[in-house]
Amino acid sequence: MTLNPIISILGRRLRLAVIGGGPGSFIGAMHRQAARLDDRYELVAGVLSSNPERAKKAGLEIGLAPDRAYTNVLEMLHAEKARDDGADVIAIMTPNDSHYQYAVAALENGFDVICDKPMTNTLEEAEALHQKVTESGLVFCLTHNYSGYPMVRQAKEMVMDNQLGTIRLVQVEYVQGARADENDPDPAKGEVSWRFDPQKSGPSLVMGEIGCHAHHLLRFITGLEVAQVSGEIGNIVPGRLVHDFAGALLRLNNGARGNYWVTQAAAGVENCLRIRVSATKGSLEWMQEFPQTLTFKPFQSPSQTRTINGPGTMPLSARSSRIVAGHPEGFHEGFANIYSDAAEAIVARKAGVKADPLALYFPTSLDGLLGVRFAHSLIESGQADGKWMDC
Amino acid sequence: MTLNPIISILGRRLRLAVIGGGPGSFIGAMHRQAARLDDRYELVAGVLSSNPERAKKAGLEIGLAPDRAYTNVLEMLHAEKARDDGADVIAIMTPNDSHYQYAVAALENGFDVICDKPMTNTLEEAEALHQKVTESGLVFCLTHNYSGYPMVRQAKEMVMDNQLGTIRLVQVEYVQGARADENDPDPAKGEVSWRFDPQKSGPSLVMGEIGCHAHHLLRFITGLEVAQVSGEIGNIVPGRLVHDFAGALLRLNNGARGNYWVTQAAAGVENCLRIRVSATKGSLEWMQEFPQTLTFKPFQSPSQTRTINGPGTMPLSARSSRIVAGHPEGFHEGFANIYSDAAEAIVARKAGVKADPLALYFPTSLDGLLGVRFAHSLIESGQADGKWMDC
Amino acid sequence: MTLNPIISILGRRLRLAVIGGGPGSFIGAMHRQAARLDDRYELVAGVLSSNPERAKKAGLEIGLAPDRAYTNVLEMLHAEKARDDGADVIAIMTPNDSHYQYAVAALENGFDVICDKPMTNTLEEAEALHQKVTESGLVFCLTHNYSGYPMVRQAKEMVMDNQLGTIRLVQVEYVQGARADENDPDPAKGEVSWRFDPQKSGPSLVMGEIGCHAHHLLRFITGLEVAQVSGEIGNIVPGRLVHDFAGALLRLNNGARGNYWVTQAAAGVENCLRIRVSATKGSLEWMQEFPQTLTFKPFQSPSQTRTINGPGTMPLSARSSRIVAGHPEGFHEGFANIYSDAAEAIVARKAGVKADPLALYFPTSLDGLLGVRFAHSLIESGQADGKWMDC
Amino acid sequence: MTLNPIISILGRRLRLAVIGGGPGSFIGAMHRQAARLDDRYELVAGVLSSNPERAKKAGLEIGLAPDRAYTNVLEMLHAEKARDDGADVIAIMTPNDSHYQYAVAALENGFDVICDKPMTNTLEEAEALHQKVTESGLVFCLTHNYSGYPMVRQAKEMVMDNQLGTIRLVQVEYVQGARADENDPDPAKGEVSWRFDPQKSGPSLVMGEIGCHAHHLLRFITGLEVAQVSGEIGNIVPGRLVHDFAGALLRLNNGARGNYWVTQAAAGVENCLRIRVSATKGSLEWMQEFPQTLTFKPFQSPSQTRTINGPGTMPLSARSSRIVAGHPEGFHEGFANIYSDAAEAIVARKAGVKADPLALYFPTSLDGLLGVRFAHSLIESGQADGKWMDC
Repeated sequence: MTLNPIISILGRRLRLAVIGGGPGSFIGAMHRQAARLDDRYELVAGVLSSNPERAKKAGLEIGLAPDRAYTNVLEMLHAEKARDDGADVIAIMTPNDSHYQYAVAALENGFDVICDKPMTNTLEEAEALHQKVTESGLVFCLTHNYSGYPMVRQAKEMVMDNQLGTIRLVQVEYVQGARADENDPDPAKGEVSWRFDPQKSGPSLVMGEIGCHAHHLLRFITGLEVAQVSGEIGNIVPGRLVHDFAGALLRLNNGARGNYWVTQAAAGVENCLRIRVSATKGSLEWMQEFPQTLTFKPFQSPSQTRTINGPGTMPLSARSSRIVAGHPEGFHEGFANIYSDAAEAIVARKAGVKADPLALYFPTSLDGLLGVRFAHSLIESGQADGKWMDC
Repeated sequence: MTLNPIISILGRRLRLAVIGGGPGSFIGAMHRQAARLDDRYELVAGVLSSNPERAKKAGLEIGLAPDRAYTNVLEMLHAEKARDDGADVIAIMTPNDSHYQYAVAALENGFDVICDKPMTNTLEEAEALHQKVTESGLVFCLTHNYSGYPMVRQAKEMVMDNQLGTIRLVQVEYVQGARADENDPDPAKGEVSWRFDPQKSGPSLVMGEIGCHAHHLLRFITGLEVAQVSGEIGNIVPGRLVHDFAGALLRLNNGARGNYWVTQAAAGVENCLRIRVSATKGSLEWMQEFPQTLTFKPFQSPSQTRTINGPGTMPLSARSSRIVAGHPEGFHEGFANIYSDAAEAIVARKAGVKADPLALYFPTSLDGLLGVRFAHSLIESGQADGKWMDC
Repeated sequence: MTLNPIISILGRRLRLAVIGGGPGSFIGAMHRQAARLDDRYELVAGVLSSNPERAKKAGLEIGLAPDRAYTNVLEMLHAEKARDDGADVIAIMTPNDSHYQYAVAALENGFDVICDKPMTNTLEEAEALHQKVTESGLVFCLTHNYSGYPMVRQAKEMVMDNQLGTIRLVQVEYVQGARADENDPDPAKGEVSWRFDPQKSGPSLVMGEIGCHAHHLLRFITGLEVAQVSGEIGNIVPGRLVHDFAGALLRLNNGARGNYWVTQAAAGVENCLRIRVSATKGSLEWMQEFPQTLTFKPFQSPSQTRTINGPGTMPLSARSSRIVAGHPEGFHEGFANIYSDAAEAIVARKAGVKADPLALYFPTSLDGLLGVRFAHSLIESGQADGKWMDC
Repeated sequence: MTLNPIISILGRRLRLAVIGGGPGSFIGAMHRQAARLDDRYELVAGVLSSNPERAKKAGLEIGLAPDRAYTNVLEMLHAEKARDDGADVIAIMTPNDSHYQYAVAALENGFDVICDKPMTNTLEEAEALHQKVTESGLVFCLTHNYSGYPMVRQAKEMVMDNQLGTIRLVQVEYVQGARADENDPDPAKGEVSWRFDPQKSGPSLVMGEIGCHAHHLLRFITGLEVAQVSGEIGNIVPGRLVHDFAGALLRLNNGARGNYWVTQAAAGVENCLRIRVSATKGSLEWMQEFPQTLTFKPFQSPSQTRTINGPGTMPLSARSSRIVAGHPEGFHEGFANIYSDAAEAIVARKAGVKADPLALYFPTSLDGLLGVRFAHSLIESGQADGKWMDC
């Protein structure tokens, strides 16, 4: 491969504008680092805060030119559209309730879009946005970044390559302690207060923050869809207005069964996103806190610990790593893979060339829609005494 | 403590007679090793097989006196009852469908009983046996041996000592690959064929073999009861007449929520019994394949790896170990703890003294009854489209 | 195999008498449990303490007949020799400085011997004892119990089977915190005070307690001998009269190189005996704190985690386990393997039959002699500014 | 902190020029990614290969302007020095034998320097370069990138904060399989052939490639210096002209003892850089393959697993991470920390302000000199039959 496929094709880096991600935003810094790592984007513009003053100040601090440190989203979209050297891509990393409006506005102004998850707060918005994306022909990339980890991609490839056989059982969980504090149920407190406000965070905080990741990870690795769900969702920390746990049993579209468990109220646990897939030829296990390894337990053979770029690495996984075996890659690199793949798709669209097929595994608006729909069905099942609901 | 509390009190070891456990029985050898390890029992009699010839031969091979290598259970019970030096205790390690009849016969003949799990195949038998035990005043010990591991007991003590605070969420799973073979669903094959015959193994192979262990482990560590269950159970390996997986959501009697996942069809997985308990002050994690450690993740403090007899060891856990820290104990030692504790209870009953309260955590007929009832409710929920069922 | 090969051949269990192991002795209880686990020995006699009163009391407490709870070693040896039902085997678990005299006395009275390590305190004693054993034709088993772990034996078999190829590099370490306390250098303190007294514990506490185990483990797994050593040994805790650490570089007899590191002064570490063997076809890693697994990293293939009785288990390893895969065995089982193997060798000698060749991997007086000689050479090298010394 | 301290102070990013790192160079891509991640550098110029044609082509492919994709190092230095918008910093990632000449030339032309390790091939060069750096007053940063990992820095801070007490024993190892192939000793083969040529790779391949990292890691974490070394170094793969293993015992300048073991010939091992530090209050353990955790085993308290930004994180460690706990950072982030710290030092020098003291832990020419000197002394000891040599 050439050293920088974007420069090779386009003669320059993609120009990126961001919405959100101002001071104190973990995810904003992450998006920008992810965009930077592989040198496929040049950050040229942004509205870093909904507060105009903070937006301007933060834009300058990250090095935007004064006239491109915008204070209003629509203004930015129009101005960048009008420039010869205007942004190519809009990346959205705002609170959940504004994803829909900004994404629609960006698409309507002809921009490719990279959007943080959950795609939208409501099923109606999700369906409308997915339709808008489909009609536009533009690239829409949803940052389910965990699907960017090399060993997650290795797992997907082993399944696709039939090294696992027929999938029978899947267990996926996302267990966190981020919202375990008894004294932290109050929507009026703290910098992250929008998360505890159901108007802003959506009908289900736990699904929007982490549950949608677990759902996507299961679908990404197995290539299966969730046909039906029976579950329960709610708040286990007393007094909270938002969901902090969900449990569900799943029926997948090939007849396999699944178990789903997500919570942000597990005191002391950090960020335990974990999946296990059992199939006729063996089982796979992966966990996000040690993403550099993938355990493969073949039927009647010794358990294997696969590593990034280690023996047995398959093409998509190899392409998703920058190291030689034994040098761990982490969260940033997985996130950057999503950005870099989206860049290839965007450049291919712009240049009218065919993208590397291995670049096309990043999550899309369809993934976003299915994620929102799954949360919806799970909530319905909980309200219906555990009745199995279609997804 | 004295070197051997049984000898100190009784002046001799307890005399043990066994039913089952002949050649090729993993669990039979385990019961005998467990009885031997702490020198609290002397094996004096047995019917090692339902086949009289094999029973006699095997009895002699393990060193039974010729007249006490019996070939018939009732004959043994009557003969041992009649001897001055007759057995004190009967240990039952036969296929599931005979536990009830042998246990009842032993109790009716005045013997204390140690019985393998599941206690019985049906709820009716479980209720009847529990009542029989209660009326008899005899000791009945059910070998849910996993509750004998020192670190499981440490977990229980930390909960009892309020080091965890209020329990909110529990995840328990027992994942195995023992029945993952596509070619092994046939009840007519092989030495373990009784297991694939629902008449012998009971209504639910997976619940009888491993599901009841997971249920007991959850109750043992948390001290909570399962109030309601919503789940699904069935066979994922095609053509099988018995269950090989079950999934469930749980509501515990303090309002905590639980997730339950058991299967024997996870190809390549060995014996992954695993539990996580999240409470207001932190989370505990334990897994059977590495039983020598217990992970404690206190809220807002570094994660701790507790070890057998390591710093912070509590009394029941300390009592349940024979080593200095860093020397792992395994499956045998946990199993032996159940046997040794039962011995103390039996000797105390016989001698009319008070047993060490720390000896009284072994599983009983009530645990057996609740285990059978849970399986029953889980099956009912599965038949009722996931409806929540009382346990 | 028959259920109990000792009973099958001898018609009874071996009769065991013990020297040492009274109240408070971890290792004494361990020896007795190890002897019991596989039902190959009957404990018939003992001198449990050098204090006659304590010896008698402890003997009765573990269930010895009053006339066989001896108070004097020579008295016991003579009395047991004289009985028709006298002991067959003498097991020695006293402080290091008495191993030699008791072992010689036992051998001279015609008893097979099981002896704790280190074999002796001095090189002269070690040479004399080894010669005595050789001349006697009796069985002498030295309890380097770590070589009894199933996965250690699996490692040895993989080497013997040439699955590793030519060994190039070995790293072995035994790191403990047992003697890390700054306030515990004083020979005059505490119950274990004999250990801090060079007269009793020998010239090198760290070599006698743990260093000899590390040396034996290396030789056992690799099948190689240490040809030369360059090292340093001493005390790192100030004021101590005994050694608490040693480091060395090794030249093995096939040209491979080794690294050796042992200490009891690593505060907070429990019992980290660990070995890594690198050869042309791959590397093996094993550590005692998680003895149930063995890591095999084949050259240019994925790393494997081998488990007790898991896929790829070889004959000696399989024979050294009592479980089905996934059920961990620990310290007791490894120790019991040494006892059970010695039993087979002893019975074969007595019965004039050939022992199962797989029973003959227990450590002998030659291993004891080489262990003492290695310590001697290491000390010499330290005194000679790191000069390489023959072993 | 402001979003980008370089922009805040300098009003722009630092301008970086690179020497080396063309197509196929793992380390070259890594340097550029490390420079990019935190947006403190703008890559403006480079000589990417010693082959002028390849240098030009690669320079263009990574997006350099045609006139700054240089083909000759001195030409670049002079041209960039002459430009108003010329490079501020020169980063060197060429084969070892050219580090000295390029670093000297860069310094002489007034550039701050970032240089890959080992600093030089000979002790004479190392001393001369260190003196040149000292006299110049310029920043010289040596990319011992492993000291950039957040948990390595956490370890250093815990030592500095006296949480460990007095250090007694250190074990450090760097075990790889990269050069384990029997068929790969030949200096004439393959793309990396310069490594097997002692003229280019220096007197000791293993020390230059990995041994110097292990030495620096020990010094970085402990804050101690190696006073004396006794060791052996050589080739274990037959026929090789370069070293592929080294073992040594160490005496540190506070009286502590150390063990050192490095090799590239451990077939199947990936990149196991690992350190353990034992002190009066406990022991630390870290390994590069799982850099996201640090194990702290306090004396007589439960073992702790520390994580990036987890509870107990200290200031330097916190500053060295970009995530919230539970999201692993890997090799790139550690490398980027070195680059970002150097940037702060360089900007402070240029702007005449005081750098954040926490930015000043990156390795310098003194570290480089001590690394080369250590290798020299180790080789000498090996040639002198293990004699202890001053370092």
